[in-house]
Order: sequence, then structure tokens, then C-alpha cells
Amino acid sequence: MTPGRCYGVGVGPGDPELLTVKAVRLLEACPVVAYFCAAGRESNARRVVRHHLRAEHTEMKLVYPLTTEAVGPSTYETLLADFYDQSAKRVAEVLDEGIDVAVLCEGDPFFFGSYMYLHHRLSDRYPSEVVPGVSSALAGAAVLGSPLASRNERFTVLSGVLPAHELEAGIAAADSIVVMKVGRNLDKVRDAVQRAGVLDRAYYLEWATLPNQQVMPLAEADGANAPYFSMVVIPSAGAIRR
Amino acid sequence: MTPGRCYGVGVGPGDPELLTVKAVRLLEACPVVAYFCAAGRESNARRVVRHHLRAEHTEMKLVYPLTTEAVGPSTYETLLADFYDQSAKRVAEVLDEGIDVAVLCEGDPFFFGSYMYLHHRLSDRYPSEVVPGVSSALAGAAVLGSPLASRNERFTVLSGVLPAHELEAGIAAADSIVVMKVGRNLDKVRDAVQRAGVLDRAYYLEWATLPNQQVMPLAEADGANAPYFSMVVIPSAGAIRR
Repeated sequence: MTPGRCYGVGVGPGDPELLTVKAVRLLEACPVVAYFCAAGRESNARRVVRHHLRAEHTEMKLVYPLTTEAVGPSTYETLLADFYDQSAKRVAEVLDEGIDVAVLCEGDPFFFGSYMYLHHRLSDRYPSEVVPGVSSALAGAAVLGSPLASRNERFTVLSGVLPAHELEAGIAAADSIVVMKVGRNLDKVRDAVQRAGVLDRAYYLEWATLPNQQVMPLAEADGANAPYFSMVVIPSAGAIRR
Repeated sequence: MTPGRCYGVGVGPGDPELLTVKAVRLLEACPVVAYFCAAGRESNARRVVRHHLRAEHTEMKLVYPLTTEAVGPSTYETLLADFYDQSAKRVAEVLDEGIDVAVLCEGDPFFFGSYMYLHHRLSDRYPSEVVPGVSSALAGAAVLGSPLASRNERFTVLSGVLPAHELEAGIAAADSIVVMKVGRNLDKVRDAVQRAGVLDRAYYLEWATLPNQQVMPLAEADGANAPYFSMVVIPSAGAIRR
């Protein structure tokens, strides 16, 4: 039997209208729609596409493992690798029946997206295709109304999980910067931005493009409840004189 | 009279299916569609949306100035600033009549897009909105089938116009890199990639996501005819072991 196709579908930053035409077409055509989610939580990616899901769709939830006790980072890495192995196996079983699967991914699948762990495990055995999506980094700049990069400016994306000194160095070396995965790292990120000397043009954003979107100067952001998908956007200084 | 709204509409990397649902809706709703283009050439952005343009649309071509003799960089900067002033004036005249204008932009309007020069000149006087689009940088990674960034990796976008030593330093400091505006800078870019020690995982792409797309190892790319919108994508070394 001809195996099904596996699509890694970027669903964009959150606003359902920022889905691409291709993402909508594939969602409507694929009998099985898979997505990662935390235990007991609605998938953010599923929420973006919910108006395109119908009763005929089979949904496959790939629920991240919960640990019942504190485990070290290497133990959790092993847990995660096993989880991705199992998830790939579940997707493969559907593909083996000749059925196409759309794997949803917030933003873009190859830009800090979990889909890449399935891609790595499946793309050598099954026809696979990645549908790029609008990254939240670009959507953040659109929400701010501030250009990210022009001419010869250097644009960098960093993870808020990085150590403080690496964040500071990365910020100082670029003209415009987006820090993703801010969440619990907000205080560390703000310190790094301040030390890099660009706090005055840094903004904190959460749920960009969604109705509950929050935007404020980073200097005023309170780290107590920053969600994992919050980010910091630092447009270039040149943006004000274009 | 209530002025019209000015939309900076990202049309994505080239494949018309990578337009967002919002871009399509606004294109169909705006009576005037404006776009930048070079003299005597079809606009790339217009080509992406041509199936959505109808006889009722008024098209506004914003044609970059041609110089009949060689001019220095500062003279050309002045010419360009005048051109953007004139273009903003033309758009403003339509907005003043209460008519909405969609300004098309390849990729994303705030990511190396010319729309930002209009935004700077109009957004304080007219209601303006930026519709983010799929960046060619992300589309390039999708075409390659190689993840761009995961976990704590540092992702950087550079312009091929940068001096060689800045390119080399920027490439060496990041885990994954996209170099935009390669074109006539291809030989310089390849040298910088080689000196940064990552030529073995660097790819050259032109017209990504379009039928005439070209993809090859950067080591094999010939700079003779590289178009302005060609790029170099260097996925992270970690991408092979996810």
C-alpha cells in the first residue's frame, strides 16, 4: 500500500486568519490531525484551527509526559526522547494505512517547533512536507508597528532559556532581536536586555495577535505570570528614522 | 471624511498558497492595491497575488527610480528618499478619499520589506495595519527539509550586502543562519561561510517555493546569475541528530 503523507503544518502565531491558504487546504484534506499538548490543557495549535476541524477528522493528541517526582535534566531528556519515539510510532501506524496526517505546529514547524522531532524520525521512511507558517517573531513586530530589520541590519532570535551572559552577548551583537520562550525567564531576560543597553526600545508581548494579547514596555513587565509563549521584541534603533 | 486604512500586506515567499487567509481577505476588500517594482519588470509581489486581482481593482505601481548615469551612494539615498516621499504622497491621496489601500510586500512587510518606508511616512496620519507574512527564510528551511532552530539555538539573519568580515563574524556567532540579498554578493558570502567553517552544511536557494525554485549546496552555486532574492540557508548542526 502506498503510505500516507506526513505534513508538518505551521499554523502561525495565534490569529486563525494568519493561517496560510495551504495550511487550510491540507487541514481540510487530511483525515488525521495530530498535535502536541500538555496534560490537561487545550493545544494552542488546535485552538487556532478549530473552525476547520469537523466530525470526520480523527484527532491524535500527543500529550507530553508528566513526571510525578522531580527528575534531573538528563532523565527528562530520556523521557522526552521516548515520548517522541512513541509519538512517531503512532503517526507511522496511520501513515502505514495509506492515510495522510497533518501535524499542527504553532508558528513555523522548523522554528522551535516540536514537529521537527517527528520529522527526524519519519521523513526518511514516509513522504513528508513542511508547510511554513508566520512566525510569532514577525507577528510581534507587526503588532508593535515597528519594523524588525531593513537594509543591512543583523536580526537575531534567542531563547530565553539561555544563560544570562549569552543572552546579553547575543543581544549586543545584533541590531534587532526577538527573545522567545520568555515565560519564567522574564527577570533574567530583562536584566540581560538592560545590561546590553537596549531596555528603552524593548517590548514584552504575550499571546500576540489573539484577543487576549498583551503588549507593554519590557521595563514595565511583571514576570509573575508570563506564559511560556511570551516574547521580547527589540526593534532596531533605525526603525524610528526610516 | 474618514480616511481609508493603509494595510502593509505580507504575501509570503512566492507560492500563492502561502498567502495568509487575512492577506487574501484584505486584497479582495481593498479597492486599491499598491506595490513596488523595478522599471520594466513585473512585481514579484503582484505575481503572487495575481489570481486575486480583479478588473475592479485599481493598481498603483511604485516604480523605483532609474539613474541614467552612475551616481554615488549618497546621491542614490537622496533619490530613494524622494521616491518614498512621492510614493507615500500617492498613497495618501487615495486614503484621503476614504479608500483603503493594500500595499503588497514579498515575505513579511517588517522584515527587509520596502513597505516600512511608507509606514514610517503614513502611520502617524492614517490608520495603518501590518499583516505579517511567511518569511522566505522560514520557507527556505521548509524546502530544504532541515529544521532551522530548536531548544536554545541562536538564529541569525544577515544581509549579503554586509562586509565580508561582518558576515563571517555573524555566521560564526550563531547556530543557524540565513543570508538574504545574496545575488551579486554570492562569492563574498560563500567565502565568509567557508571561513566560518560551515560550508559543508550551507545551501543556496533561489525562488524558493516557486516552480522555478533552485536548491543546491552552496559549494556548488555559481554566482554569475544569482537573483537579488536568492539566499543562503545554514541549518544548525544539531538538525541532523534530532
